[in-house]
Amino acid sequence: MQSQTIRQPNGEYVYTLGAGHPPIARVECGKSFVIETIDAFEGRLRSNHDLYTARCPGPPRANPQTGPIYVEGAEPGDTLVVHIEAIEPAEDFAVTALIPHFGGLTGTHLTATLNAPLPEVTRILPIRDGRLRFNDLIEMPLAPFLGTIGTAPELESISSLVPGPWGGNMDCVETSAGNAVWLPVLNRGGLLFCGDAHARQGDGEVTGVAAEMSARVTLRVELKKGLKISWPRVESDTHLMAIGSARPLEDAARIAYRELIGWLVEDYAFDALEAYELLGLAGEMRVGNMVDPSYSMVAKLHKRYLGQRGSASTNRPSLEEDII
Amino acid sequence: MQSQTIRQPNGEYVYTLGAGHPPIARVECGKSFVIETIDAFEGRLRSNHDLYTARCPGPPRANPQTGPIYVEGAEPGDTLVVHIEAIEPAEDFAVTALIPHFGGLTGTHLTATLNAPLPEVTRILPIRDGRLRFNDLIEMPLAPFLGTIGTAPELESISSLVPGPWGGNMDCVETSAGNAVWLPVLNRGGLLFCGDAHARQGDGEVTGVAAEMSARVTLRVELKKGLKISWPRVESDTHLMAIGSARPLEDAARIAYRELIGWLVEDYAFDALEAYELLGLAGEMRVGNMVDPSYSMVAKLHKRYLGQRGSASTNRPSLEEDII
Amino acid sequence: MQSQTIRQPNGEYVYTLGAGHPPIARVECGKSFVIETIDAFEGRLRSNHDLYTARCPGPPRANPQTGPIYVEGAEPGDTLVVHIEAIEPAEDFAVTALIPHFGGLTGTHLTATLNAPLPEVTRILPIRDGRLRFNDLIEMPLAPFLGTIGTAPELESISSLVPGPWGGNMDCVETSAGNAVWLPVLNRGGLLFCGDAHARQGDGEVTGVAAEMSARVTLRVELKKGLKISWPRVESDTHLMAIGSARPLEDAARIAYRELIGWLVEDYAFDALEAYELLGLAGEMRVGNMVDPSYSMVAKLHKRYLGQRGSASTNRPSLEEDII
Amino acid sequence: MQSQTIRQPNGEYVYTLGAGHPPIARVECGKSFVIETIDAFEGRLRSNHDLYTARCPGPPRANPQTGPIYVEGAEPGDTLVVHIEAIEPAEDFAVTALIPHFGGLTGTHLTATLNAPLPEVTRILPIRDGRLRFNDLIEMPLAPFLGTIGTAPELESISSLVPGPWGGNMDCVETSAGNAVWLPVLNRGGLLFCGDAHARQGDGEVTGVAAEMSARVTLRVELKKGLKISWPRVESDTHLMAIGSARPLEDAARIAYRELIGWLVEDYAFDALEAYELLGLAGEMRVGNMVDPSYSMVAKLHKRYLGQRGSASTNRPSLEEDII
Repeated sequence: MQSQTIRQPNGEYVYTLGAGHPPIARVECGKSFVIETIDAFEGRLRSNHDLYTARCPGPPRANPQTGPIYVEGAEPGDTLVVHIEAIEPAEDFAVTALIPHFGGLTGTHLTATLNAPLPEVTRILPIRDGRLRFNDLIEMPLAPFLGTIGTAPELESISSLVPGPWGGNMDCVETSAGNAVWLPVLNRGGLLFCGDAHARQGDGEVTGVAAEMSARVTLRVELKKGLKISWPRVESDTHLMAIGSARPLEDAARIAYRELIGWLVEDYAFDALEAYELLGLAGEMRVGNMVDPSYSMVAKLHKRYLGQRGSASTNRPSLEEDII
Repeated sequence: MQSQTIRQPNGEYVYTLGAGHPPIARVECGKSFVIETIDAFEGRLRSNHDLYTARCPGPPRANPQTGPIYVEGAEPGDTLVVHIEAIEPAEDFAVTALIPHFGGLTGTHLTATLNAPLPEVTRILPIRDGRLRFNDLIEMPLAPFLGTIGTAPELESISSLVPGPWGGNMDCVETSAGNAVWLPVLNRGGLLFCGDAHARQGDGEVTGVAAEMSARVTLRVELKKGLKISWPRVESDTHLMAIGSARPLEDAARIAYRELIGWLVEDYAFDALEAYELLGLAGEMRVGNMVDPSYSMVAKLHKRYLGQRGSASTNRPSLEEDII
Repeated sequence: MQSQTIRQPNGEYVYTLGAGHPPIARVECGKSFVIETIDAFEGRLRSNHDLYTARCPGPPRANPQTGPIYVEGAEPGDTLVVHIEAIEPAEDFAVTALIPHFGGLTGTHLTATLNAPLPEVTRILPIRDGRLRFNDLIEMPLAPFLGTIGTAPELESISSLVPGPWGGNMDCVETSAGNAVWLPVLNRGGLLFCGDAHARQGDGEVTGVAAEMSARVTLRVELKKGLKISWPRVESDTHLMAIGSARPLEDAARIAYRELIGWLVEDYAFDALEAYELLGLAGEMRVGNMVDPSYSMVAKLHKRYLGQRGSASTNRPSLEEDII
Repeated sequence: MQSQTIRQPNGEYVYTLGAGHPPIARVECGKSFVIETIDAFEGRLRSNHDLYTARCPGPPRANPQTGPIYVEGAEPGDTLVVHIEAIEPAEDFAVTALIPHFGGLTGTHLTATLNAPLPEVTRILPIRDGRLRFNDLIEMPLAPFLGTIGTAPELESISSLVPGPWGGNMDCVETSAGNAVWLPVLNRGGLLFCGDAHARQGDGEVTGVAAEMSARVTLRVELKKGLKISWPRVESDTHLMAIGSARPLEDAARIAYRELIGWLVEDYAFDALEAYELLGLAGEMRVGNMVDPSYSMVAKLHKRYLGQRGSASTNRPSLEEDII
């Protein structure tokens, strides 16, 4: 039996995460399905001569998403757990770029300066044997992840360039195959959006652009009924993680560490200050992005530091899982 | 002849600025009209015993707006100039409050801390003889303005709590009677929203809440056809101003000063660096808010420093004005 | 009888505020004295052709100060009140400049970018009839103040480019004639430093450079024995003010508002949250600088909002004043 | 033959990094020596009942350092390379704490709020078999490093709590055994300070306090004559790293990435924009601290991404090395 494959009808990708878009597919908990995502440049940069400002319309028509996907049984107040099973390149190349007045080491439209922009550059990155070719001397392994994954916010319809409590353009390498991404359900059906797959990315996505690629993404969802989370969480085999998005970067970090403390208190019987002290000694913090309209930071704790409480997890039972 | 009076149908205020809402009225350039706005708490705090967390649903159902108002002739790529002719209290009191985990001198959901919240407080501020009564000892003059004024963003639908390039919840005292607010037209009809009138406010709105009041607001609009602005501008009898909204606060200030330099270059024949140097010596910068999801700063230059260029303004002629 | 005149011996200005420098003079409370200060470029930019990078050594040999001045009777734990009686230009010009990678609208060594620097510019600003000539079209009134005024920090010796709890390079127009600047005494004798007089400055000193001038400054000091303050305060005829210095700008603002609340509680019998609410409605906040290693913000409250408590001030009596 | 052992005379540790302190020892390039450092609480917290505010004097008498150490042959304009050979606990415990108004998830004296402080806590962390005992359930491996290492700044004398271009209180786990720390020589003899050893620390040191311990530290120094660096660098077997310290956190990150680009350009023949693009795909960024007066971020590139250029390194020859 084959998985359901979801692609955007007529290639009319969406540029906002919101409940106003009609669902393009419906999925059930527990069953794997495939989503086809197009790269952040919507396929317009295919050679080193294709410059962003010449080929792309620019914000807000940027970062095209596949979705929304309606999850059967999802109700506001639940948490949607998205198991990322696989992310495969859809083409034999990825692409990176320098875009004027965008990135971490240049004045931008928010960190406004009078300096001339950096030169515009497009760099095609061939994919071969599971490796990405940067130039004649340098290759690097593929490490694919979804730059953008989120649910529709409540009432709002937000640019797919923006990360926030609903997920969105977090640009965190942790939303990769093998990990489970927890997102808040804020509308009936959850309304999941995915896109912006990256073949790999450095911490912070400092140029503003990763190794952008179109992808085939295999997902499976489940629901935690009646569990409200404030910010996205990620669970891997080894780590509990929370993602905060804000400016300045320390506020994103504060959010992420506080949300992780909340998780430790709720599910692992920690006292809040004890969890805080533990993170002071064993917490990990990774820079997702330092270039998007809000920056994203990922707080992590290795499960080895859950003590015996890890095994006595008080994880809420999932009605949806039981039924399925 | 009486002005058109616009009120929200059925009291169903909106909580987002976006093109998805049906227009509640249509207005023509050059003709004054009246908008009725309700206070930011939607009339729910009417005594010192009405606490926010008990009476109000909280975000995103917060900061109710009257709108959208369709401006005849407005096309994307124009600038909408809103002349604020009058802002009058609709009741004999305003109200201020301390809301848990909200404000400038407390941990918040973005500047996340583990500290206990400050006590919750509601304070009714009677209005008498044009003055606001703070307590038995202290009164202060009314200085009314619109905390929120903006047009619908392009593609997005954004919470009315958020300020941005489209205006929104800037909480700047400069959007007051006698001043003209320039807003970008990003959708056909412009789609103007107003609300969140304040009887007065300190710089930065440091508690997160001003003297909130319902109001009758008299406006008149005109269009600058084919003029694209990046951020809101304000013109008074004495000053040119630009409003930037971002975090951290210095980014809001950078945006505001850069936008003001752009205005001086476009309309007053300044060289950009000369304008920059002039602002270094004569620029004014006021803190609008330091509490909203983005902070707002207002850059200003007194018109006396335009030199003779002030009189030889190259302001684009407005076709709409001509026709009307 | 003539005032004591203090000038730096041998023109060997100092570039740090610290207790390691030998005092250049001793002053008594209650007696006016004159300090001669040299401009921030140490007199090296005297024509539009004198560029900063060609003429000046650059940090840390920048922002030359006159001092330290030993205040008789000052002990750690006191507060030094510096009454600024007059600030007069010592020459018939001031000077402003654009310095590469320095200023509010450019990448800097702290907001590090890869962009090329802005052009370097020096602009002599002739002073005539109490006015500053910007160019052929634009003149502006003199509004002199001390860009740098502070006491020696405890243990540390800090660059005169840096503002902090001890005062220093706050670049706030509020340290002007007619106002009293409160500084912490952290070493025996207080050890006062002054310099960096500005003929005038825009809010935030956005280019990084004001109208720099050499000056004759008339001061008178008094002591508040046993009063410890955390950050500088300023009192004028009309306002109570506190100055916070930090990055990002909102932290400077938070410090300033909180210190002002502390003052209202200590000396004017306010409850802290009541003072907070009052500042939400009537507080003023001015951007001192947004360009120095720490940014400075000035929180203010008009004395009319002290209520009757203003007259029943509980200001600590000053033993030093009594003696003198 | 035994190594030279350096300890602070009379236990009179220093609390500032500056050239004003007399050197406590002189060392030669190429010869290992041992430094004894005391923990950040100067040995005052020895049980869970020893609270910080009761036992410790607080800033600026905080974070005691061993030094300065005079490096023979070091001249301003050189770079001092400190090889950390070993860091061993001097006692059988480390200690962590929650200090009022200090840390990443609380209002602080810079991120000033009106909230009550978090509870004060001291937690002794027994060291046994190379592991740190957090509580009955949780142990973690030792991962010792120097929280503070730096040279004397030029002209200034800065609190040992502050990190900056001279190193200082960076609280980065990268200054650990096996790594070489590059520091600018700004005074004759370099004037090296070390202290604040940590048995381990979470990313960002979120509580403000790591596992603080007294230590025996084995170092060896060399000089890169005539090499000026702007910010500290670290070299490990696998990585090139640069450390930026500033607020907000993104400015620390910008500094670190830009300094690393500078290194790639100077020593590995990269073009600056090519290096920038490479870091966008393969750069690593770790949060050193988000709690000190300036925050510290560590930018890294794995040496595998140096291409063949890694082997053809243009590292400047070191005269000092040649001589020794």
